[in-house]
Parts: sequence; structure tokens; C-alpha cells
Amino acid sequence: MATSSTPLKLGVIGTGAIGRDHIRRCSHALINSTVVAVTDINLEHAAKVVAELGIAAEVYADGHAVINAPEVEAILVTSWGPTHEEFVLAAIAAGKPVFCEKPLAVTAEGCRHIVDAEIAYGKRLVQVGFMRPYDEGYRALKRVIDSGQIGEPLMLHCAHRNPTVPEQYKTDMAITDTLIHELDVLRWLLADDYKSVQVVFPRKTSKAFAHLKDPQIVLIETVKGTRIDVEVFVNCQYGYDIQCEVVGETGIARLPEPSQVQLRSEAKLSNAILMDWKDRFIAAYDVELQAFIDGVRAGHINGPSAWDGFAAAVAADACVAAQQSGTIVELGLPARPSFYN
Amino acid sequence: MATSSTPLKLGVIGTGAIGRDHIRRCSHALINSTVVAVTDINLEHAAKVVAELGIAAEVYADGHAVINAPEVEAILVTSWGPTHEEFVLAAIAAGKPVFCEKPLAVTAEGCRHIVDAEIAYGKRLVQVGFMRPYDEGYRALKRVIDSGQIGEPLMLHCAHRNPTVPEQYKTDMAITDTLIHELDVLRWLLADDYKSVQVVFPRKTSKAFAHLKDPQIVLIETVKGTRIDVEVFVNCQYGYDIQCEVVGETGIARLPEPSQVQLRSEAKLSNAILMDWKDRFIAAYDVELQAFIDGVRAGHINGPSAWDGFAAAVAADACVAAQQSGTIVELGLPARPSFYN
Amino acid sequence: MATSSTPLKLGVIGTGAIGRDHIRRCSHALINSTVVAVTDINLEHAAKVVAELGIAAEVYADGHAVINAPEVEAILVTSWGPTHEEFVLAAIAAGKPVFCEKPLAVTAEGCRHIVDAEIAYGKRLVQVGFMRPYDEGYRALKRVIDSGQIGEPLMLHCAHRNPTVPEQYKTDMAITDTLIHELDVLRWLLADDYKSVQVVFPRKTSKAFAHLKDPQIVLIETVKGTRIDVEVFVNCQYGYDIQCEVVGETGIARLPEPSQVQLRSEAKLSNAILMDWKDRFIAAYDVELQAFIDGVRAGHINGPSAWDGFAAAVAADACVAAQQSGTIVELGLPARPSFYN
Amino acid sequence: MATSSTPLKLGVIGTGAIGRDHIRRCSHALINSTVVAVTDINLEHAAKVVAELGIAAEVYADGHAVINAPEVEAILVTSWGPTHEEFVLAAIAAGKPVFCEKPLAVTAEGCRHIVDAEIAYGKRLVQVGFMRPYDEGYRALKRVIDSGQIGEPLMLHCAHRNPTVPEQYKTDMAITDTLIHELDVLRWLLADDYKSVQVVFPRKTSKAFAHLKDPQIVLIETVKGTRIDVEVFVNCQYGYDIQCEVVGETGIARLPEPSQVQLRSEAKLSNAILMDWKDRFIAAYDVELQAFIDGVRAGHINGPSAWDGFAAAVAADACVAAQQSGTIVELGLPARPSFYN
Repeated sequence: MATSSTPLKLGVIGTGAIGRDHIRRCSHALINSTVVAVTDINLEHAAKVVAELGIAAEVYADGHAVINAPEVEAILVTSWGPTHEEFVLAAIAAGKPVFCEKPLAVTAEGCRHIVDAEIAYGKRLVQVGFMRPYDEGYRALKRVIDSGQIGEPLMLHCAHRNPTVPEQYKTDMAITDTLIHELDVLRWLLADDYKSVQVVFPRKTSKAFAHLKDPQIVLIETVKGTRIDVEVFVNCQYGYDIQCEVVGETGIARLPEPSQVQLRSEAKLSNAILMDWKDRFIAAYDVELQAFIDGVRAGHINGPSAWDGFAAAVAADACVAAQQSGTIVELGLPARPSFYN
Repeated sequence: MATSSTPLKLGVIGTGAIGRDHIRRCSHALINSTVVAVTDINLEHAAKVVAELGIAAEVYADGHAVINAPEVEAILVTSWGPTHEEFVLAAIAAGKPVFCEKPLAVTAEGCRHIVDAEIAYGKRLVQVGFMRPYDEGYRALKRVIDSGQIGEPLMLHCAHRNPTVPEQYKTDMAITDTLIHELDVLRWLLADDYKSVQVVFPRKTSKAFAHLKDPQIVLIETVKGTRIDVEVFVNCQYGYDIQCEVVGETGIARLPEPSQVQLRSEAKLSNAILMDWKDRFIAAYDVELQAFIDGVRAGHINGPSAWDGFAAAVAADACVAAQQSGTIVELGLPARPSFYN
Repeated sequence: MATSSTPLKLGVIGTGAIGRDHIRRCSHALINSTVVAVTDINLEHAAKVVAELGIAAEVYADGHAVINAPEVEAILVTSWGPTHEEFVLAAIAAGKPVFCEKPLAVTAEGCRHIVDAEIAYGKRLVQVGFMRPYDEGYRALKRVIDSGQIGEPLMLHCAHRNPTVPEQYKTDMAITDTLIHELDVLRWLLADDYKSVQVVFPRKTSKAFAHLKDPQIVLIETVKGTRIDVEVFVNCQYGYDIQCEVVGETGIARLPEPSQVQLRSEAKLSNAILMDWKDRFIAAYDVELQAFIDGVRAGHINGPSAWDGFAAAVAADACVAAQQSGTIVELGLPARPSFYN
Repeated sequence: MATSSTPLKLGVIGTGAIGRDHIRRCSHALINSTVVAVTDINLEHAAKVVAELGIAAEVYADGHAVINAPEVEAILVTSWGPTHEEFVLAAIAAGKPVFCEKPLAVTAEGCRHIVDAEIAYGKRLVQVGFMRPYDEGYRALKRVIDSGQIGEPLMLHCAHRNPTVPEQYKTDMAITDTLIHELDVLRWLLADDYKSVQVVFPRKTSKAFAHLKDPQIVLIETVKGTRIDVEVFVNCQYGYDIQCEVVGETGIARLPEPSQVQLRSEAKLSNAILMDWKDRFIAAYDVELQAFIDGVRAGHINGPSAWDGFAAAVAADACVAAQQSGTIVELGLPARPSFYN
């Protein structure tokens, strides 16, 4: 394990867009980490990334080789989603801490296998790549909630809006690619679990492809009875806009808007709205991975757990079922193992 | 009928709080109107109001006497709700224009009787006292929608919040006393009708009386497919707060906040929130009644119609049924008679 | 004098733009007033206005005839500025209340004549047409100051911005046509008088005509020591924008922005800024004239006084001198006569 | 010089509050730096800081020993202000890059010595610790100005407000401790120099100590003719509040407010205002020092230069003279040496 004077030695599986960016981050932006091993389904690409980023990492033949390389102290899984489960299980088997990008596994059952393996190992090794809890805006919102200033949360009004999506974006991806971020962060924000979900389809925008139902509204009830509505609108045209308003017993708190220069110009008093999700959440990736690195070095991983990944997967499955059935769907999430308390 | 040089002579039935305020308004605040006849269930009270306001109005024995008084050119019905239907029908029978405070009648069936009577009479005589369409904020919002700047409306996110309500406020009054204002104004705002409604009950606030379910969320689908959610929260503690956000295909428009002095003080950048609904909508009452007076004098009543009163009543009935059933309730509103186009 | 049942009978001198609008206002928008006599330098135009507005007013040969017409109870002076002094003095001589549009007189000396005449008459008869104290925004700001919430006012940061001005607008008009509104309202807002003024000229905008110095900054010290800076920028392009921020010992209060629909559209979160001063202050004209009418009927005129008109004229003269000298100019305003306390 | 694989080895002179914080920053928060040598007027304190921060730095007998230590590649001067000039000159003599906290020297003449020494050396070695140009808000504001969106800047309205100051804060410290930050950042923001300054004293707040003139307003004219007004108010009670509004030919841009959770609570719509300057600018210190470290490693220091330190000192001297004289004071800044272009 790394001491305070030596950086954590990371192995990275997958050098696509997010993988390459995490390698850059861990090599050139964060402290106390270094990337010593990489691999990719395309080994030439892995070698190219190593060269371009100017790092001294060895290219291994596959993910298992990275995991088992003796110098590798912790793993980042940033490969294609369907491979996540295999590599995370292998990391657990090797007893090495592993940060896994979303999704933890492509099925709730796969997530459950990871949960079971981690519990069997007996110590938290897995952090799942849910980055919104590391966003300063959500953290500020949670501080307000937890302070009791607005009393108990009763309702959340949320929106997840993208300017446009490409043609390959299908109706169920409103859940699995878009809402998944809210499913992840709202459990954490409220310290609560989802009980049931319902999906309604408003009048469709003329700006979406013919096959896509857009917008959608997802209605969620939590175990504590808090009601959440999330508008998912992925062709809203005007911007990338994430809203979250928490209505408490005595007051309302709202996720901060990104800080912007206020302009008076052309008969408008205006603030720019971001168009790209990266501008909104890029800083949270740094904080998230630094937290993983610091957690591993301290011997205590605190970030989103395998259980959180499983719970999000169960919720997403229920939402997709609710899209199809038009009815209220109960999640049936098992009780949280004490291991994760 | 009044000419440009003579004010409209009004008869007012009911001198309770709202009646007295309308008498004051028509006598001392609006132009081209004068109150010449009043009555009340309590005739002494009617006389007292006449004296206190310093007006030269005759006190009649009952509503029918007011309606039939030869000098009375138009009627204001501000008596107890269950009497509205009778007096409005009588005014129609007398061929006199009538402004009726909410509700037009206490049942949808009663509203329908008025609609039928007015159609039979052959000319619009009735304006129902829905004042929000006369609020400058809603009018500005409607201008934005109608301008096409945000494209077709797809979703509305609304809230109706009161600081507290007294103990006699029951769960169904969240519909009949509170939501009714949204039911009235949103049809007008969208130029659309409601198709179905659903009510969900979030975790209850600890600040409400034991018998009251508060907050509630009402989910409405319109004929055009627009989805409306209205949070009704009548013990929100912090203020009287009316929110309406219209999500269109290309942009979002939001009901203006009341204009307030911005303060930097005690570590807060703040604007006051109103605590009393009267401060929010008082100006709209002036505009509403002036519109009625002007309409009668011009021979052309344009305000909220008996049909609007009927449609709101049907919607309210459906919402109360939805509160009780927990299911989606279809309105079954008949087609709008061409008389009201 | 009018009783509660009869409207105040007004004579109007001058039927140009503002005169015509005041006639319309007093005839068709306000209560308890009627216009019975008018005149203009162009009598045909006066007759045309009477006809177009559909009022029963007699056209008199000149202002003195209006003032002396027996049926006329109060006067509105809305003629060309250089004639104001003469007509206001004549109204005082006739013992009739008179509302005089800005300026009260074209020189401070002329204003002083009016002050002297009114004091000699022994009762307030004159209200000068400074409308900003009747604007709801300024009134709300004054309520905050007077409440003590922000402690004693120490500094005011103000701006008066117009999109553009025509070529005939000269450098000194930044004082006499533009700043005059701040000179009028800020004395009232602070209940204070101006002690000295200084004018500085920033880098000139390329959007102004060659002969015009634009923008300008006027620095004012009050008798109590409060420091006021007013940016006058009459080719700011983007809007008609009036700003006033009051920095007190314990907090800061800011003049409300006009209430607007908030839009999310085209990568901007925006509120419209007005382009036309009329949209900003039109409502204040109604309130201002209604206050005059009510004041006359109650026998007690409370609005901006002849002394206020004189003080504004003295301040404007000092500002023009400061424009020319580049130095700090003392006002030398005489002590306020007890008559005006 | 450090290569990409080895961190920059820093020597730190002065382990007081800011020195200790910079040591922590360079050791545990920034990348590519390590602190290898420290000293302080109190050597025991230096040793204590080294121990507490858990770093492997040697404690040297004095600043010159740190500068001349062979392993030290760059210097941070965070000692008492009057010693800055000596240590910066020594670092230049040793040919080692040096980051010097404000002030560069306690006199303009001292700053000039440093400028002359650096020019004589022939390569930029000095970065002065002006951190506001590294604040994301100011950077965003500068991007807007530089984009041409608001045209040429004509006026700046600024405010620097602190809740309170201790008794030892004297009237001239409003310039040397407080305004100095604006003097530093506004030259950078506008890419302009100051030509003359004037100071006016508003009515004094009752919340300041008797000896202190508070608030003050500093009026600055730049070489390009832009007019800047800065309100300095160090007992404003309500918060630490930094305002900067840039009025351009076609629009106005305003420094962003710190991002905060919006609250609806207790009849107020509010955002928190910071009370402590550290919360406002702490992130800028990280960016500033990382820029120095990166610049040294890249062989190219880009941050605020010795010339910027000199220009700020000349401007501060002029402001203090203007406080005392009450007149407009010309700066007489010499032409910028081409070395600093």
C-alpha cells in the first residue's frame, strides 16, 4: 500500500474516451497517484494513449493481466460496460481496490454478484463511478438538507435536460443513460431508498427523432414517503440543465445554478446556460477520483459502493418496466446488508 | 345600458368580506361604475357596509329584489356559494349581465344549468370570478407562450403554497379551495382542456393538523397531451408562493416573482416572499372587475365564462375522486358548445 | 371644491404629447376627475384632442382663460417649459391648485418666484410633476430605508441609461433632461439635500454623436454627507435601465428590477430589459395624478412641492456648472422655508 | 530544473499563516511540487510546521541559506513585508525563480529595485502573489470583456466590503491592505494603466472605530480614459462582498456571485453571502501557485510580474496621497519596459 511519500500505483482497463481522461487525470491533475499499467481491447490504442500522455505505464495484454500485475495497487475499470462485472469480480478476487465506471454491471443480477463477492471478501474494495455526489453544488444542497434548515424533505422536483441526443438514443436510454444519474445521486442526497416508480409521457416534442418518446416524467416514491418527480427532456434545445429543488417542511432549497457572468445586453439581463455536460460536472470527476485514491491510501473507501450500484440498477430496471407498463412499479429492493452501513 | 358619460349601475348580492371589498372597489377605485343596490342575508350588515363606504346604494330585501330593481344594470353575486346558482340563473332570466364569484355553482351540474340557461338566452351574460387571468404575471407568461418563443408547451411544473391553513381546512379543500385557482388559470394559459387527473400524497408535513393530507401533488394530462404537475402545499410555513414553469419545445418560461427590493443584509442576498395571498393578487381583482364593467358597457363580456366555471367544476370533481381512489380519473368533459368559442 | 360625489373639474393648458396623455388619464383612467377646459398654443389641436378623446371640455383661448374659467377647480400645466412659470403664478394668483409638469420653471430664479408667491398665498397650491416618488419600486425602496433595516444610508450608486438619444440631445441635457429625474427622486428618497456636485467624463462611447459627451458620472455629496454617484449613459444600446443601490451602515437595498418572465432559451437564462422609459414609469403617472386629484379634493396637497422644484433646479444648475468647470461646485441652496416642512 | 517526472523543489522563507498554508498547498494539494527547505524568523516555529505537515524539508538558518541551498530550485517569499525586497533581490542574484507574496516591497522604490534587477538579469524570475487574476469569476469576466460582447469598457463600478476590521486597521490601510487587490486585478482585467486617482469620504458609518474613515470611495481614471469607482467599506456588517461591474459600449458584465443554494425560507428568497474572504478566494491560491510551479517547470513565468507589483505600489502611493490631499493625484507611472510586454 502507498505511504504518504509514494503515489498510489494504478492499473487502468480500457483506454477509450473516459479511460484516457482518467489516465490523464491520475497522471497529471491529481496528487498521490500514478498509472503504471494499462490495457485495452485495442492494444495499439492503449500504447498510443500511454505515449501521448507521456507516462511510464506498461501495456498489458488484457484486464486480468493488469489486475494481477504485482506493481498494480488499485484498478480503474473503464472498459465496455458488459465487461465491468468480470473485471470487478477479478479485482475483488485479487483483493485489490477497484474503481468501476458506470454501470457497475449491465444487469442488477450482475451488480448483486459483485455485492456478494465483496461481502464474502469482507472489506470494501469497490467504488462505483457515480460522480454527482462529488459535485460542489449537490454537496452544498446536501449540507442544507442535513442542517435541518428546511425540515424533513417531502418532495423533490428535478429536471435533467440535454440540448439534443443522437439518433441511436432510444426511449429506454432516458432511464439507463440519463435518469441513472438522478437515481444515483438522489438516494445519497436524501439518505433514502426508492420504493416505487411510475413513468408518464407528456406530449412529444417535435424536435426528437420519430422513435424517441421525449420528454418523459419519472415519478418516484421513497421508502420514507418522499415524492420525487424528474423531468427527463433530452432534446430541450436550449442547454444542458440540471435542476433539483428540495421541498422541506419549512423551506425549499435549490441546487445552485453554475456561476456565470451576468450580462445586460440586447434588451436582456442574462446568464449563460451551459450546453455541454462536461462543463457542468468535469470538476466532480477530479474530486471523485481523488477521493478514491485518498480512500485507498487511507485504507478506507467511502465513495459510492457496490450496493449503491446495485440499488441504482434495480431502480433503473423498475423505471424501464414502468415505461413499458404505464403502471406504478414496486422496486422490491432487498434490505441493505449491514456490511454497507 | 350605460353610455360613455354615465357609470354602470351595479347591484351587489352579499356584503361579506369579498362583497364589501367589491363594493368599495366599484365605488372608489374603478371607473365607470357605481353601486346602486345591495343586499345580504343579514340586512343590517348590508346597511352598515353602505354607510361605512359612504355610497348612495339602496338596501333591498333579497337577491331577487336586487336583480329585478329597474335601476340595476348588472349584478355582482358575492353571496354564500350554495346560493350562486339561483342568483345567476335569475340574472340570466332577467337578461342582466352578472359577475359571479367562485364557485359559479357548488356542483358541476349546477354550473351546467347556468351554461344551458345562458345558451338558451342566446348571449353571454355571465362572467365567473376567476381572477388569475387578470394578473399581470400570468398575462406576461401567456404572451411569451403565445409568441411561440418557447415552442409548443409540453409540461407545466406548478406550485401553490400557503404558509398555514386553519383547522377547518380538510383534505378535499386542497382541490376545491386551493387547486381550483390553477384549474381555472391553466386552461386559459394553455388554451387547452384537462383529460385526466391523478393525485399522489407525499410524506406528510409535521406542520399540518392530523386530519389533513398535506402536501399533495396533482398530475394532470391535457387533451393536447401536455402534462401538468401541481404541488399543493398549504402549510409550507415560509410564504404564499405561486409558481408556474412552462416547459416548451425550445425553451422554458416562468411566472415572474413579485417585484421586491433586493437586500444584502446579515449574510444573505434576499428578496422578500409574500405571506398573504391578497398582496399577490389584489391588483388582479381591480383589473378583473374593471374588465367586467367595461365589457358590459361595450356590450361584449370577454372574461371567464360559465363554460369555464363548468369545466373547472368538472375538473375539481375528478381531482377529488382521484384523491379518494388513488387512480387516474378521466374527466369526460363534454365538447365545448360553439356558443363559447 | 368637489365633494365625494362629484369629480374634480380640471383645466389643462397644453395639449401636446404629455398634455393629451394627462387629459386621457384624468378622463378615462383615474377616478374623481373630469377635464372641463383645455387650451393650447395651437387651438385647433386642442379641439382635435377634445374630439378624439370624446370628452366634454371647452376649448379656451389661452392659459389665463382656462385658469380663470369659473367652472375650473384645478389646473394642469403641460405647455412648453418656458411658459410654466407664468401659468403657475397665475394659478396661484387665482387661488387654484396647480399641477405643473417638469420643469417647474426653466430657471432656478423662476422656481423661486413660484415658491415666494405660494408662501405669500399662505397655502400649498402647487404640485410639480416629479413622478418617480410615485413609482412602486422607489416607494418600496424608501420603505426599506425608512424601516431602519439597513441603518443610515451612506452611499448611493445609481445609473440612468437610455438605449440611444437623438442628435439634438446635447451634453448639458444629460443633466437637464436625464439626471433631473434622479435629482428629484433622491432628495425625497433620502430626505436630504444636495451640498455639492462634481461631474467626470469617462472614455466616450463610439455610439454617441460627435458633439455629445456620453457617458458622464455625476458625484453628489448631500448635507448629511451621503455620497451619491450617478452614471448617466444615454447611448448604452441595451435598454432603458434605472438602477439605484443604497448602501447603509448594516445592509444594502436595491431598486427592484421590473418584474419579467424568466426565460431559459438559446443557452441563456434571461429576463427582458425594457427599451422604453414609458414601459418603466407609465403606472407612476397614474398614481401621481390621482394623488394630486385626491389631494385637492381633500384640501391637502402632499406631492412634490414648488420648493422641490426649486431645489432640483438649483442642483441642475450646479451640475451644469460642474460639467463645464470640472471642479466641485457647491449648491448654496437656501434654508428650506418652514412653510414646506 | 525539474523534468516531467520530478517535482519542483521549493524553498519557503517564512512559516507564518500564509507561509504555512503555501507549504501545505505545495506539499499536499498541488502537483509537481515539493517543499525541501524552509526557514522563519522563529526557527522553532519553522521546525514545528515541518513536523505538523509531515514533510521532509530541512530547516535553514535564514532566507539566504534557503535561497542558496543547492537542492532548492525555486523560492516562496512569505515572510514579513519589509523583508520581501531583500529576499527577492537575493533570489534574482541566485538566478532562482521566486514567488513573492504581497507586497513585492513596502515602497514603490523597493519594487523598482526588483524590476531593475530582474531586467538586468535578463529573464523573468519573479511572480508576485496577486491571486485575483486566478479567480475563476474574474477570469470569466475577462473572457467576456475580451470577447468584445460588451464593446470597449467605459466604466467600472466596484465594491470591496468586509464585515468588520480590527482596531489596528487605519484609514490608509483601506488602500494598502484592501484596495490593493482591486489595484492589482483591474489593470489586468482592463489591460490598462491608472492615470489619476481621487478619494472621497462619505458619511462615516457608526460601526467603525473612531479613528477610521469608513467607507471610502476611490475614483480612478485609466490611461485609456475608463473611469473606475471603488467603494471600500470594511465595516459593512453583512458580509465579505466583492463586486465588479464593467459598463461597456454595448452591454454590462458583472463579476459572478459565488454559487450558492437558493433558499425559500422564513418569508425570504435568499442566497447566502460569504462572511470570510478565504471562502471567496481560497481556490485562487491553488491556481496561482500551480501556475507558478508549472511556469517554472516550463521555463516561462506568466503570472503577475515585478512590474505589476511596482505599478500597484505606485497606484497605492497615489491613493494614499489622494486620501490626504482631497485632490486628484496623477500617478506618473513610467512607461512599461519592453521587457514586460
